[in-house]
Amino acid sequence: MPDTAWDLVTARTADLRALQGAITLLSWDQETYLPPKGAEARGEQLAALQGLYHEKLTTPELGDLIARAEQDPLTPALSPAGGEGAWQAALRALRFERERAVRVPDRLVRELAKLQSESLVAWREARAQSRFERFAPFLARLLTLRREQADALCAPPGGERYDALLEGYEEGMRVARLEPLFKRLTGWLAPLVARLAGAAQPPDPLAGQRFDVEQQWQLTLEVLQVMGFDGEAGRQDRSIHPFSLGVDPGDVRLTTRLSEKLPLSALFSTLHEGGHGLYEQGLPAEHRRTFLCQGASFGLHESQSRLWENLVGRSLPFWRYLLPRFQARFPQASGAGLTAFHRAANRVERSLIRVEADEVTYNLHIVLRFELELGLMRGNLAVADLPQAWNDGMERLLGVRPARDAEGVLQDIHWATGDLGYFPTYTLGNLYAASLFAAARRALPALDDDLAAGRLLPLREWLREHVHRHGRALPAEEIVRRATGRGLQDDDFRSYLETKYGALAP
Amino acid sequence: MPDTAWDLVTARTADLRALQGAITLLSWDQETYLPPKGAEARGEQLAALQGLYHEKLTTPELGDLIARAEQDPLTPALSPAGGEGAWQAALRALRFERERAVRVPDRLVRELAKLQSESLVAWREARAQSRFERFAPFLARLLTLRREQADALCAPPGGERYDALLEGYEEGMRVARLEPLFKRLTGWLAPLVARLAGAAQPPDPLAGQRFDVEQQWQLTLEVLQVMGFDGEAGRQDRSIHPFSLGVDPGDVRLTTRLSEKLPLSALFSTLHEGGHGLYEQGLPAEHRRTFLCQGASFGLHESQSRLWENLVGRSLPFWRYLLPRFQARFPQASGAGLTAFHRAANRVERSLIRVEADEVTYNLHIVLRFELELGLMRGNLAVADLPQAWNDGMERLLGVRPARDAEGVLQDIHWATGDLGYFPTYTLGNLYAASLFAAARRALPALDDDLAAGRLLPLREWLREHVHRHGRALPAEEIVRRATGRGLQDDDFRSYLETKYGALAP
Repeated sequence: MPDTAWDLVTARTADLRALQGAITLLSWDQETYLPPKGAEARGEQLAALQGLYHEKLTTPELGDLIARAEQDPLTPALSPAGGEGAWQAALRALRFERERAVRVPDRLVRELAKLQSESLVAWREARAQSRFERFAPFLARLLTLRREQADALCAPPGGERYDALLEGYEEGMRVARLEPLFKRLTGWLAPLVARLAGAAQPPDPLAGQRFDVEQQWQLTLEVLQVMGFDGEAGRQDRSIHPFSLGVDPGDVRLTTRLSEKLPLSALFSTLHEGGHGLYEQGLPAEHRRTFLCQGASFGLHESQSRLWENLVGRSLPFWRYLLPRFQARFPQASGAGLTAFHRAANRVERSLIRVEADEVTYNLHIVLRFELELGLMRGNLAVADLPQAWNDGMERLLGVRPARDAEGVLQDIHWATGDLGYFPTYTLGNLYAASLFAAARRALPALDDDLAAGRLLPLREWLREHVHRHGRALPAEEIVRRATGRGLQDDDFRSYLETKYGALAP
Repeated sequence: MPDTAWDLVTARTADLRALQGAITLLSWDQETYLPPKGAEARGEQLAALQGLYHEKLTTPELGDLIARAEQDPLTPALSPAGGEGAWQAALRALRFERERAVRVPDRLVRELAKLQSESLVAWREARAQSRFERFAPFLARLLTLRREQADALCAPPGGERYDALLEGYEEGMRVARLEPLFKRLTGWLAPLVARLAGAAQPPDPLAGQRFDVEQQWQLTLEVLQVMGFDGEAGRQDRSIHPFSLGVDPGDVRLTTRLSEKLPLSALFSTLHEGGHGLYEQGLPAEHRRTFLCQGASFGLHESQSRLWENLVGRSLPFWRYLLPRFQARFPQASGAGLTAFHRAANRVERSLIRVEADEVTYNLHIVLRFELELGLMRGNLAVADLPQAWNDGMERLLGVRPARDAEGVLQDIHWATGDLGYFPTYTLGNLYAASLFAAARRALPALDDDLAAGRLLPLREWLREHVHRHGRALPAEEIVRRATGRGLQDDDFRSYLETKYGALAP
C-alpha cells in the first residue's frame, strides 16, 4: 500500500524532531563538556543544523503534504489525547510552526541571527562598563527588525505587534489579556511588597559559613530522586548557569551550579530545573516523532519549575523533610531550627536584580519589563529614554532605584538576544504554578504530610496526569483550565502568598 | 560579486562537515553520558542526520557545482598543502566521497543498514552461546549485499570485488598489493612468533594486585599531558570500550576503561587513543570546512595510535620515565624493577583473541581474517565452512586452535556490522608506524633520551609536521613516502621487532 499523506508528513516531522534533538544535545554539550577550542566548530555545527531545520520546515512540499493530510480520509486517528484526535493536534502544531517560519523572509532570519550575535557581544561589554549607550544602537536595530518580523507574522496593520512576539513563546497570548492581568496583579502585589520588605528581615542562619560542594552535589541528587526524576531517563551535570534541556522524554539533561557559600542556591536550582525536567520526562513519548511531544508553552513550562522550586521547595512541610538531611551533611548548620531555615528560604527584599528576587517581588520585575517592551514596540518609548524609564519604573513598582545601568536596564540577557516578549512567561509560570498547586492540594488531601515525609511521587503523578502527558495537544491555558477548573488568573497566587507570608510574619 | 562555483561548493561542504561533527558528537555521547532510556531517540537522531548527510552529499546540484568549480578559473588556490593546490585536493576528496555515495542505490543503503542492526543482535546472541550457525544466515546475507555494493562501486566485471570494499577504508589500496605483502610478512613473522612464544615467559610483577582506579585515571591524564594532547582542544572520559573521535581539531574526545586489576590496560589504551587524538588535533583546522580536515586513511590513523601505544609506550626508554611515576602512585609495585616491567609490557603469547594479542602476533590475526574475507568475497569459501577454515588458519599461522566459536570465528564485531575490508588497515597501521618511528628516530637523534625524560613534544611535532598537518590532501602512502623516503613495506617493522625482541630475549 502506498504511503498516505499522513505517513509522509510523519516521516518529515520525525526528521525535524530528530534535528531538534541533535541541536539540543549539541547545546547541552556546549555548556557542559565542550573543550574551549571546540567553540568555533560548535557554532558552525549548530548554525548548519538550524539552517537544515529551517529548510526542511519551510519546504513547499511539506506545506502541500500537511494540506493533503488534513483532508485525507486515510489519515489515521492517533490515540486521543485531551478529547481531540491527537493527529489533528499534531498537524495543527506542525502547521503553526511552519507558517511562522515561512512568513519571515530568509533575509530577515539571517539579519536577526547576525545582529543577535553582535548585540550579545556589545551587551556584555556595555554591562561590564555599565554604559547603556554602548548597547543602545544594537537594541534600536533589533527593535527595527523585530517590528519588521512582527509585521511579517501578520499582526493586523496598525494592530499590536507585541502579540506576534508573544505568540512565539506563549501561543494564543495577547497584550489585551496581559495588560489588565498585570495591572490587577500590581495593584495588590506592590502594597504586599511594601509591607513585607519593610519588616525586619530574619538573620540568615547560614551566613559566613562554607559548605562542601561534594556534599551539596549529593544532596541535589537525593532531592532529584525524591522528586521522582528518573535517573535512567536523564542526568544532572554542572555548568556555569543552571539550565535544563529535553533531548527526549528518555533523555533529559539538567545542570546545577555549586557555590561553597550558598548551599541553598544549588538546592533551589536543582528543584527548579528538576521541575522542568519532570515535565520533559512526562511528555507523551509515544508521540516523540511529532510536535506533540513538547511543552505546551514557555509559561506552562515555567510553572513546573516554579512549582517545585517555590511551592514545594520553599514550603514549611518540605523543610520538615529536608532539614534533617541538610544538617546530616552539614553539621555546621545543626544549630538553626526549622523556622529559621524556612524564613531564610523566604526572605522578601526589594532587590535590584530580577534573578536574585524572591517569589513576592519577582513579578514586579516582570511587570516593569513588560511595560517597557510594550512601549518600545509601540513606539511610545525611545531607546535613548530606556534607562530613565527603567529607573523610574523600579522606583514606582519596587521602591528602589538603580545607581548604575549594570544593575538596571543592562542586567538581563534577553534584549541582547532579541527575545522581546519572553519575560511575561515567567509571571504566567508563577500564576499557573499557584493554581496547579492549589488544585493538587484539593486532589491530594495528604499533600502536606506527604511533603513532610518526602513522599513527592503523588504530586508528580498528579502533574503528569493533568499537565505533562498532554504535551502540546492542548493550549497551555486549556490544560490549566482542565486541571484546575479555571483559566489564567491571579487569585490563587494571591491566596498562596497571603497565606504563606501571613503565617511567616514575624 | 556573485558567488563562484567554488564558494557554493564550499558552503555545501561546510554543511556536510558540520553534519559529520554533529553525528560524531552524538555518537560520543551515546557511549559516555546518554541515559539508558534515551537510546531509542538517539538511534533515530543519528539515522536522521546520516540520512540528511547522504541526501546533501548525493544531490545532483552538488555534482554540477563540483564539475563547474573544477573548470572555473575563479576557483581560488587555497594555501598549498603538500605541493598541490589544496583546493584541488579538497575537490578531489569531495568528488571521491560523493561518487561512492551516488553509485550505491538508496535501496541497498537502507537494506544494508537494516541488516547490520539485525546482524549485530544475532552476532551478540551467537557469541554468547558460542554457536556460529546462529549468525551464519546473517553473514551470508551481508556478503550478498556487500558483493552487490562492490559491483555498484564499479569493480570491473569479473574483477576483484574486495578492492571496492578496501577503498572505503584505505583509498587506493588493492588486493594485488596486500596479498604479496602479507605473504612476505607471514614468512618471517610466523617463525619469529614460534621462537618468542616458545620461550619461557617472564613473571608478571603486577599479577594478583589491585590498583586504585582514581590513581590510574590521574596517571592516564598525566600521560596525555606529557604526549602533548591539548586539554583545551579535547578531553578524556570513561566508557565500556575505549575509543577516540574527532569532532573538530579543537574538539577531540577520547575514552579509556579502568580496571582495578589491570593498570597497564588503561595506560596503553590512553596511549593508543591519545595517538589517534594527536592526529585529530593536528589536522589542518583552517580547512575544517572541507574534506581535507580528516585523516588520510584508516591505516594511517591506526599508525598514529600504534606508534604511541607500542613504539613509544612499550619501549624501554619510555618506561624509564614512566616507572617512577607509576610506582609513586602504586607503592605496591615498588618491588619490581625496570626490566621486569618492560618485559611484562612486552610478553609474546600465542593468544586466541586478536584484541588481547601482543604486537608480534597481532598481524597474524589480521592475515587470517584477510585470507578468509577474500575467500568469502571471491566465493572460494562458503559461510558454512568458515569456522573450520578459521580454526585451521589459527593452527597454521599461530599454532593454536580455538575450542569454541566464541574464541574463534565469532570474536570480532566487524563482520556483524558488515565491515569487511577493514581488518587490513590494522596491519597497515603497524607497518606505517614502524616506518614513521624509524624516520623520526633518524630526524631526532636524541629521541631515546627524550622519551626517557618524558620530553615527547619533539616527536609530536615531527608527526604533526610530516603526517598530521597534511590531513587528507595526499594519499596515505604518499604522506608516508614523503616522511620516510619509502612507501608501504614491512622492512622497518621487521627491523623494529627483531631489534627489540632480540634485546629482550631472556
